[in-house]
Amino acid sequence: MATFEFDAATAVEGGGDRWHAEVLDGWDIGGNANGGYVLALATNALRSASQRAHPLTVTAHYLAPVRPGPVEIRTEVLKRGRRLTTVAGSVWRDGQQLVHLVGGFGELDAETESPLHLDGTPPALPPPPDCVARNGTAGTVPVPLMDRLDVRLHPDDAGVQEEVPSGTGLVRGWFSFADGRPVDTLALLLAADAFPPAVFNLGLPRGWVPTVELTVHVRAVPAPGPLRCQFRTRFVSGGALEEDSEVWDGAGHVVAISRQYGLLARSAG
Amino acid sequence: MATFEFDAATAVEGGGDRWHAEVLDGWDIGGNANGGYVLALATNALRSASQRAHPLTVTAHYLAPVRPGPVEIRTEVLKRGRRLTTVAGSVWRDGQQLVHLVGGFGELDAETESPLHLDGTPPALPPPPDCVARNGTAGTVPVPLMDRLDVRLHPDDAGVQEEVPSGTGLVRGWFSFADGRPVDTLALLLAADAFPPAVFNLGLPRGWVPTVELTVHVRAVPAPGPLRCQFRTRFVSGGALEEDSEVWDGAGHVVAISRQYGLLARSAG
Repeated sequence: MATFEFDAATAVEGGGDRWHAEVLDGWDIGGNANGGYVLALATNALRSASQRAHPLTVTAHYLAPVRPGPVEIRTEVLKRGRRLTTVAGSVWRDGQQLVHLVGGFGELDAETESPLHLDGTPPALPPPPDCVARNGTAGTVPVPLMDRLDVRLHPDDAGVQEEVPSGTGLVRGWFSFADGRPVDTLALLLAADAFPPAVFNLGLPRGWVPTVELTVHVRAVPAPGPLRCQFRTRFVSGGALEEDSEVWDGAGHVVAISRQYGLLARSAG
Repeated sequence: MATFEFDAATAVEGGGDRWHAEVLDGWDIGGNANGGYVLALATNALRSASQRAHPLTVTAHYLAPVRPGPVEIRTEVLKRGRRLTTVAGSVWRDGQQLVHLVGGFGELDAETESPLHLDGTPPALPPPPDCVARNGTAGTVPVPLMDRLDVRLHPDDAGVQEEVPSGTGLVRGWFSFADGRPVDTLALLLAADAFPPAVFNLGLPRGWVPTVELTVHVRAVPAPGPLRCQFRTRFVSGGALEEDSEVWDGAGHVVAISRQYGLLARSAG
């Protein structure tokens, strides 16, 4: 039986309020697991605890870098409601809390999936072959994560990975898995953090931008095919920045939106 | 010694990981305390526990309506970092958890406050006397909260409170306290939830829109004077909607941004 990489990488075992998982090697940026990957892995445990089908809104606070290896995920069901079950959780290793999470879980059925109002359209992107593959070895820090994914950047935004900023805090591109795994709602959490930071296209003094908090709203089960994604940073102030994403599927539906709060490196602030 | 209403309404007592507070009458919508008010009150306890000056990013999950009366606020410091202290918390009454919170707290000093990049401008608003005062008795549900505040809506958006939708998911207006209290970073949490829902201006079948989750990023200490606020709902789908805000001060700085995930009434979905 074929197993897709993402399924192996987000597998959780356990039950009740304790879950065990392995943070796999190869989903990292310079040795630290990608924040979207960790979010998807931990959310898989919270979703299991919720006994619901989909994450609808999930927030993670990143407390420490997550290296490959075993972790424990503790979950606490805060409320079982009719439409939503709310679960808090935390990722632990060696007595240290690495991530705190809280999310609302529920169903996405035909009734709710039909959009009532969409003010916006997917980002205009050239077809994937005319975009620029995100290269895991282009920057100063290796990004093995890119071997798992097929991320293709809009040519106008792709200078971000060569340190040739466009001058606009915008990164657009296609997202799919390298091994062809279909994108489901859990994978949307990864997509929301799988692109180069849009702030790097602004040409400000560059530095590490640690994600403090990431919130993803899931709005629909994605239709098959690659996703069109857009990441924008509008405000760099208060020692911080926000990065907002929109993730659209091939059916022209917004399937997720996300926002993160990132700390600006002091040298740049 | 004069006490401003908001200070009395957000006072907390206690220490360590247990705090006590009184949810005051008069900050409600139809008997239930406004979500922004509850967020500010609870965040005051989390901020005290953090021993830092300001909330920087705070997320609340609303589990049950909060009526006036005493509450217990439990806090847990998850991490004390150099720049940020992360605190989780919960609001309890009679053994029931009403709200779950998590936030990052820190300082906003002169160095960090100077904006490096602002892609956007405050919403264009007529002067406050030419705007429409938000009326706590205009709708079908009384909003005593409006007696505490001086909220003035852009004339183009103000039909929202008379059930004359503009057709655009947008509500803009001025925010200040009725008793002249200066707006600080705690009050920004209230401002982020003190306007009529922007979705009501879309003219969709109307219904109660319970807030599931509200996240506020605080980016600067506001300059004196009323705030210019903008609330926008772009996507109504998946049985839910997002409402994004921008809050600008008189110095032309974005002082907060927020996003909430709201459940659409089933009759409208």
